[in-house]
Amino acid sequence: MHACSVRRLAGVVEAISFARGVPAPECLPVDELADCARAVIDRDGRDVLSYGSGSGYSPLRAWIGERHGVEPGRVLLTNGGLQGFVLLAQHLCAQPSRVLVEQPTYDRPLKILRGLGAEIDAVPMDEDGLDPAAVERALAAGPRPAFLYTIPTFQNPSGRTLSPERRRRLVDLAREHELLIVEDDPYGLVRFDGDPVPTLFSLDPERVVYTSSFSKTVAPGVRVGYFVLPPALHAAVEAAAVATYITPVLLGEATVHEFVRRGHFEPNLERVRGLLRTRRDAMLKALEHDLDGSGARWSRPAGGYFLWLDVPGVDAGELLERAGAEGVTFVKGSDFGGPASSIRLAYSYVSPDEIREGVRRLARLLAPAREPAAASL
Amino acid sequence: MHACSVRRLAGVVEAISFARGVPAPECLPVDELADCARAVIDRDGRDVLSYGSGSGYSPLRAWIGERHGVEPGRVLLTNGGLQGFVLLAQHLCAQPSRVLVEQPTYDRPLKILRGLGAEIDAVPMDEDGLDPAAVERALAAGPRPAFLYTIPTFQNPSGRTLSPERRRRLVDLAREHELLIVEDDPYGLVRFDGDPVPTLFSLDPERVVYTSSFSKTVAPGVRVGYFVLPPALHAAVEAAAVATYITPVLLGEATVHEFVRRGHFEPNLERVRGLLRTRRDAMLKALEHDLDGSGARWSRPAGGYFLWLDVPGVDAGELLERAGAEGVTFVKGSDFGGPASSIRLAYSYVSPDEIREGVRRLARLLAPAREPAAASL
Repeated sequence: MHACSVRRLAGVVEAISFARGVPAPECLPVDELADCARAVIDRDGRDVLSYGSGSGYSPLRAWIGERHGVEPGRVLLTNGGLQGFVLLAQHLCAQPSRVLVEQPTYDRPLKILRGLGAEIDAVPMDEDGLDPAAVERALAAGPRPAFLYTIPTFQNPSGRTLSPERRRRLVDLAREHELLIVEDDPYGLVRFDGDPVPTLFSLDPERVVYTSSFSKTVAPGVRVGYFVLPPALHAAVEAAAVATYITPVLLGEATVHEFVRRGHFEPNLERVRGLLRTRRDAMLKALEHDLDGSGARWSRPAGGYFLWLDVPGVDAGELLERAGAEGVTFVKGSDFGGPASSIRLAYSYVSPDEIREGVRRLARLLAPAREPAAASL
Repeated sequence: MHACSVRRLAGVVEAISFARGVPAPECLPVDELADCARAVIDRDGRDVLSYGSGSGYSPLRAWIGERHGVEPGRVLLTNGGLQGFVLLAQHLCAQPSRVLVEQPTYDRPLKILRGLGAEIDAVPMDEDGLDPAAVERALAAGPRPAFLYTIPTFQNPSGRTLSPERRRRLVDLAREHELLIVEDDPYGLVRFDGDPVPTLFSLDPERVVYTSSFSKTVAPGVRVGYFVLPPALHAAVEAAAVATYITPVLLGEATVHEFVRRGHFEPNLERVRGLLRTRRDAMLKALEHDLDGSGARWSRPAGGYFLWLDVPGVDAGELLERAGAEGVTFVKGSDFGGPASSIRLAYSYVSPDEIREGVRRLARLLAPAREPAAASL
């Protein structure tokens, strides 16, 4: 049974990847973007194909400003969101700094902060996201942090969402302690169930830096991230952007703006939500089918790309080493600062069929004692 | 005479910019790039619009590798050349470092190196470029530098080109002293007169890191720079690129590749050379007409965007302050580490007519005693 259900290609197991936090190919609105790219070059080529503002393509900045109720001058477009985080963190951590992060959190910012020599304080979270009481204890325990980095909605890696009550409490805390919050929100619009919750930014547009991107709502390859910043911080990060790459990718930005201008944004988002909801559902159903009663626990994300699995007593690193041979892969939770028993499962890239098969393989990995017995029947 | 020849718009002098080192709008192959962008998304959208290799779009890496006679695995595409320089310099200057640069040199790398805390040694150059004897003295004067940064062909800011003999001598020196050379060559293909000279890279592909971009040969807005690196350095800089922005702008890179694939590259380059040659000629002629016998001296670039003007006894910073009112602007040479009397004139952006008029204004600025007398006639 074991060997038969693992597809093999010339002896090599074809791996099912729960590691790739990227959109499934069918999520990408290829035809529309081809039309949009051509149209903006035809119409606006001499601007789009030259150097320009370090903050990026003005019409897209204006659209983002309007959506967030701020002056376009506060919007900075960057070559993907991570690039902007690097510039912002370099500025905020120019002096030896303490930074609060969620535990677990997205590994790339962690790595960037480590590279900057920041002292990183990981604040525990539970099913309702970051615990404000824990944030308060962390604030009391040391010097004022340069900022708190949080992904409050459909978090990477856990898929968890900060509850509305905690959002209010967190923003209150930030005010009391003059704490700057950096709210990273690439997944917020990719919601499958329930009503949107207010962003931290909407609760305090002066105390919260908001960042998102079009990677999950349009396409990653356009490389368009954005930041909404207080004016002084905007000027500093824009200067750093100019000193690093002169001008961001105007072509990608203009293409996204044309996509929005033509009214593609909302219908495409609805389509993407449907494609990802099906995948989330397939993963939850497969986990219930294959792991119910095993002692494993998992998050039930209402949106985004990720689900967080915890298997008490199991070492996810050791599991990952054996997973390749079984034809499934994932990222171990400890890469995100999570416990040794935790696992990040991305359902965004693979098909529902692959999700079912991948979870089956994972379940076999987790129950090695049971399976060989079954196979020998 | 003075007031009449300065165009005024509602009382504001319309400035002629010799400051902007950017291509004139007519240099941009807008129609071709619109077709290419559309075609690559149509054909290859699911790759081009997603995340991909941190080194960029493989077909373009292969084309560049072939042109330079190296494995594509040594080619790294970056979001413009400067972005790559930042990543490379961060890596090479991770420890306290000494870096040799040309005097004068491009101001942006200077600023980046200063930001990294590098000890910068500026090595004098003359009409034939960097003086190898001066490089040798600099090498003898201190610890081994992390690298030598040079723009040997149609240098920014001076327009000067390192002679073939000096290229050989410089590469010999690099071998003798185990010196890494970073050869920045964005202008080399934009040659108006004479035969190409060998790149430093072609003289020693192991000891020289080569970098160029498509900003001057195709369009800046595609944001495609590239590096040819020794394998170990390639791996390190690629890892830094991934940690900074995950994937560079595949859309711009694929568009450039399609442009090349369709055979547009060489004809477009020939067209751009013609447009810029006319500008260079207009500037040289205007300088001879308006400044001959004034004591000013200037370089006679055989390609590129820039000409270097030196006016003994004049403070270019003070001149620049008065230049705005006269309706002309430039960058003072001291921004590039040049003497107080030096000026960088970019002829790339303005039209030949504007060049003639701009030089006239500059000449008036340089001879304030003569002009009012003429105006009072």
